[in-house]
Amino acid sequence: MKKVRRQRKVENPLHAPHDKWRTALTCIEPNKILMRGYPLDEIMGRLTFGEAIYLLLQGEVPSPGIGRLMEAILVSFIDHGVTPPSTLAARNTATTGAPLRSCVAAGVLGFGRHHGGDIESCMQFLDQGLELVRKGTSYREAAADIVRRCEAADEPIPGFGHRFHTRDPRAARLFQMALELEVDGHHIQMIRAVELVMAGRPAGHAIPVNIDGAIAAVCGDIGIPPEIANALFIISRVPGIAAQAQEERAREHPMRQIDPKDSVYDGAGQRRLPDKRR
Amino acid sequence: MKKVRRQRKVENPLHAPHDKWRTALTCIEPNKILMRGYPLDEIMGRLTFGEAIYLLLQGEVPSPGIGRLMEAILVSFIDHGVTPPSTLAARNTATTGAPLRSCVAAGVLGFGRHHGGDIESCMQFLDQGLELVRKGTSYREAAADIVRRCEAADEPIPGFGHRFHTRDPRAARLFQMALELEVDGHHIQMIRAVELVMAGRPAGHAIPVNIDGAIAAVCGDIGIPPEIANALFIISRVPGIAAQAQEERAREHPMRQIDPKDSVYDGAGQRRLPDKRR
Amino acid sequence: MKKVRRQRKVENPLHAPHDKWRTALTCIEPNKILMRGYPLDEIMGRLTFGEAIYLLLQGEVPSPGIGRLMEAILVSFIDHGVTPPSTLAARNTATTGAPLRSCVAAGVLGFGRHHGGDIESCMQFLDQGLELVRKGTSYREAAADIVRRCEAADEPIPGFGHRFHTRDPRAARLFQMALELEVDGHHIQMIRAVELVMAGRPAGHAIPVNIDGAIAAVCGDIGIPPEIANALFIISRVPGIAAQAQEERAREHPMRQIDPKDSVYDGAGQRRLPDKRR
Amino acid sequence: MKKVRRQRKVENPLHAPHDKWRTALTCIEPNKILMRGYPLDEIMGRLTFGEAIYLLLQGEVPSPGIGRLMEAILVSFIDHGVTPPSTLAARNTATTGAPLRSCVAAGVLGFGRHHGGDIESCMQFLDQGLELVRKGTSYREAAADIVRRCEAADEPIPGFGHRFHTRDPRAARLFQMALELEVDGHHIQMIRAVELVMAGRPAGHAIPVNIDGAIAAVCGDIGIPPEIANALFIISRVPGIAAQAQEERAREHPMRQIDPKDSVYDGAGQRRLPDKRR
Repeated sequence: MKKVRRQRKVENPLHAPHDKWRTALTCIEPNKILMRGYPLDEIMGRLTFGEAIYLLLQGEVPSPGIGRLMEAILVSFIDHGVTPPSTLAARNTATTGAPLRSCVAAGVLGFGRHHGGDIESCMQFLDQGLELVRKGTSYREAAADIVRRCEAADEPIPGFGHRFHTRDPRAARLFQMALELEVDGHHIQMIRAVELVMAGRPAGHAIPVNIDGAIAAVCGDIGIPPEIANALFIISRVPGIAAQAQEERAREHPMRQIDPKDSVYDGAGQRRLPDKRR
Repeated sequence: MKKVRRQRKVENPLHAPHDKWRTALTCIEPNKILMRGYPLDEIMGRLTFGEAIYLLLQGEVPSPGIGRLMEAILVSFIDHGVTPPSTLAARNTATTGAPLRSCVAAGVLGFGRHHGGDIESCMQFLDQGLELVRKGTSYREAAADIVRRCEAADEPIPGFGHRFHTRDPRAARLFQMALELEVDGHHIQMIRAVELVMAGRPAGHAIPVNIDGAIAAVCGDIGIPPEIANALFIISRVPGIAAQAQEERAREHPMRQIDPKDSVYDGAGQRRLPDKRR
Repeated sequence: MKKVRRQRKVENPLHAPHDKWRTALTCIEPNKILMRGYPLDEIMGRLTFGEAIYLLLQGEVPSPGIGRLMEAILVSFIDHGVTPPSTLAARNTATTGAPLRSCVAAGVLGFGRHHGGDIESCMQFLDQGLELVRKGTSYREAAADIVRRCEAADEPIPGFGHRFHTRDPRAARLFQMALELEVDGHHIQMIRAVELVMAGRPAGHAIPVNIDGAIAAVCGDIGIPPEIANALFIISRVPGIAAQAQEERAREHPMRQIDPKDSVYDGAGQRRLPDKRR
Repeated sequence: MKKVRRQRKVENPLHAPHDKWRTALTCIEPNKILMRGYPLDEIMGRLTFGEAIYLLLQGEVPSPGIGRLMEAILVSFIDHGVTPPSTLAARNTATTGAPLRSCVAAGVLGFGRHHGGDIESCMQFLDQGLELVRKGTSYREAAADIVRRCEAADEPIPGFGHRFHTRDPRAARLFQMALELEVDGHHIQMIRAVELVMAGRPAGHAIPVNIDGAIAAVCGDIGIPPEIANALFIISRVPGIAAQAQEERAREHPMRQIDPKDSVYDGAGQRRLPDKRR
């Protein structure tokens, strides 16, 4: 949005001049579709869906390393079982007989600021620490400082904590990949410093770095701005919401009372990907 | 949904027994997330987002060939510029200052039966033809027959025609890939026969096979049922809807009158992917 | 929708002629808003919201009797506690911190065909019976006949049955008002005949006429077509959905697991409206 | 929402104690529905829909004067023609063949902070002025002061200005009714003082008080808090969104390009309500 909020002037929209407005995403001409300049039928088969998503959102084809990180980010948030409120909103919609797109839309609406919708806070939090680092503070001291500020304001530490996990396996994996692909930078270093500060707290309840925080840090280091990072959460979770809604329609009676506490998992047992897979 | 619509019995939901209900998608335990049995942190970095989507929806890791076709299917529908009604619904929501998830939800709701939401019709149409083929009719005659039936009922041919293109480049590419990956089968053969029938019509306006039809045929041949195929359209287009909403927020004034006819493309000129890309 | 589904022709939407399209609802001119021809500031204070809704949807100001019936229809479906899936979808959205409009939208999506979204079936069912009556059958015999047809097809009787009530107090009240206001006609007579048929069944579980059926019958008799009647359900329930979402935000912690079975009512005890109220 | 944002603790939702949670809105028992304590079938026919909405949201039956003001508030925002972005989102959804509830949901999502979704700003603005008045400043000086503060911050004056009208007829009517019903108080007095300040500006473009501002002021004086006032905008506009979506489906071809500038009004000419109407 333009920063200046303009007072609504009187204008007659029915007689406004036909000004052109501009779009830089996709050019449609007869028999030709250019997505950020690349013909879509050329992209098909040569870029993955994850790479194409990056291209569409950022405007350029990702490097192989960033491409692999994008796939991992998108996979990390793909589903989290039946208990998230967004998933329950989708299942409750499905049980009324509504079509799939209505269920997906209902689920997407459930990404409020407490649920994958607060990348800005995460990134601002890390940027506060990085500003101290730029002025000469160590990462450890900067981390301790920004944590103290949150606690003084009675605010939770953005990117930390989880309803369910004491160690979020997705966050750990993402950091490991960033290291291996040599794209880890200041944001990741900052959040790992905060992780150490949190771990040094008196034993009570664990407050691990969570996937929101890990994605915020990684996005910060690979140059994905907060508003685009927000989009990644939604894009990632839509397949999960769709799968959950489909399962509700396929296995359950309509108009049932859905209690998340009464679910049991009856799917495949734990298994490993074949070794030859990449 | 269960096929029998049961009469709503009197039951008191506040005192119903706590029956367990079952889910086979994702198992959540402390510090462990199993998606269809595979630990999510193992999938990260070893499967692409497209492959993970297939795994989640179908229950098994795709073969390399089917995996590549999945990527292509998901890339094919990722965006189609500013004119689709679903995109305009998203942009109109964005111009009011609504957050990204609201814009995406509004866009997702615009996949009615006239817009990527009618895979069942496509698949049924092809299945009618395949039934004739199983009884001994040639593909060409079967195609002519099912086309005639549609026209007699004054129905459009499912999977054919486009508002804008006389030859949908995405459909052609998808068929080519199916051939190269040796997954093309009866459904694709059937729709190509229909394509020939349509091409033999008196010159008037072209009615090409469109991406909906191509995806329906390919899904039929790789074993993706209609309800899952419907999900693929939504999953594919969500990045496009998100990108369009972001661009609206970033470049335009709030509360503007959005006329699709007044847009011009000012993005990257046509360009080619580097040759070394896969 | 136009009945003929046209094949999508090739046309270039960017160069289509600027044809005018027409709207008959609300005329906006500088400093003047005409809703169905009446200045909105004149309607304010002279028609109720319910009467204005009828005017907007049907195009004319309702008679006093029909106006009162409209109010009653709209009041009847205004809320039904915490258990309906649409309400749970809204509450689950609210618990993530999403704004009110997102919660309302999520709730509105939950009116699938099993939940207030099947007026057409109700009205068709009653019309089948009325056709027999027009040919000379008695209401009782016609009712028995259409009930038999449903049962033979293993279909529930549209407009009958309820998850919770053996006698839907809202349906009874609506019929009573229709009688008092002398607007009851053939549709209501038909559904009451079905009520008698259902009541004569062997004692098992009660299948009362429900509010969906009562509204369908009343709308049939006061000339509100099915598509408008569908709108009345949504319009009626939106205040309830909004109130439920607000209560969730005001009283509960964010990101909680919402189990409908664990709710207790702690509001006002049963009380009566003052006698002098109309 | 609780003011303290708590750090997400580790807890296992599958084993959380079954704590009861409370609702004060509607009590459902077999064959009985109590809305804020009143049996719904008693409310039907004795309270209007507008009065029932107030009862549900505020918890008590409104006085006759406040009841009439509620009707007027709800009527005032019921529709504003084809140009609002929320209406266009709904029409674009309708043109794809989506069902009515999807169209309504898409329209409801378009009440962002620039479009009927910023009552808080309005009320805060007026409260700033009222605080000065409580300390002894005149209404006129307080109004001039808060207007200056907005302008210094380059912020638009909340509740003022309109895309289209130089004098919003709905705002004027609402103030007139508040006066007649003797419910006008400090908030209305404050906004009328701001109106005078704005009118005294050098002639350029008019910045009238708009319906958002009028509703905010009236709600402030009749004790409706901001979050409930936000709900009234949504409740009021849903009939308009539904009517617009129905008209799109009934009169137009599917998948059309909807340009708001190309619409013409072809409905009833201007007419007057019969004098005997209340």
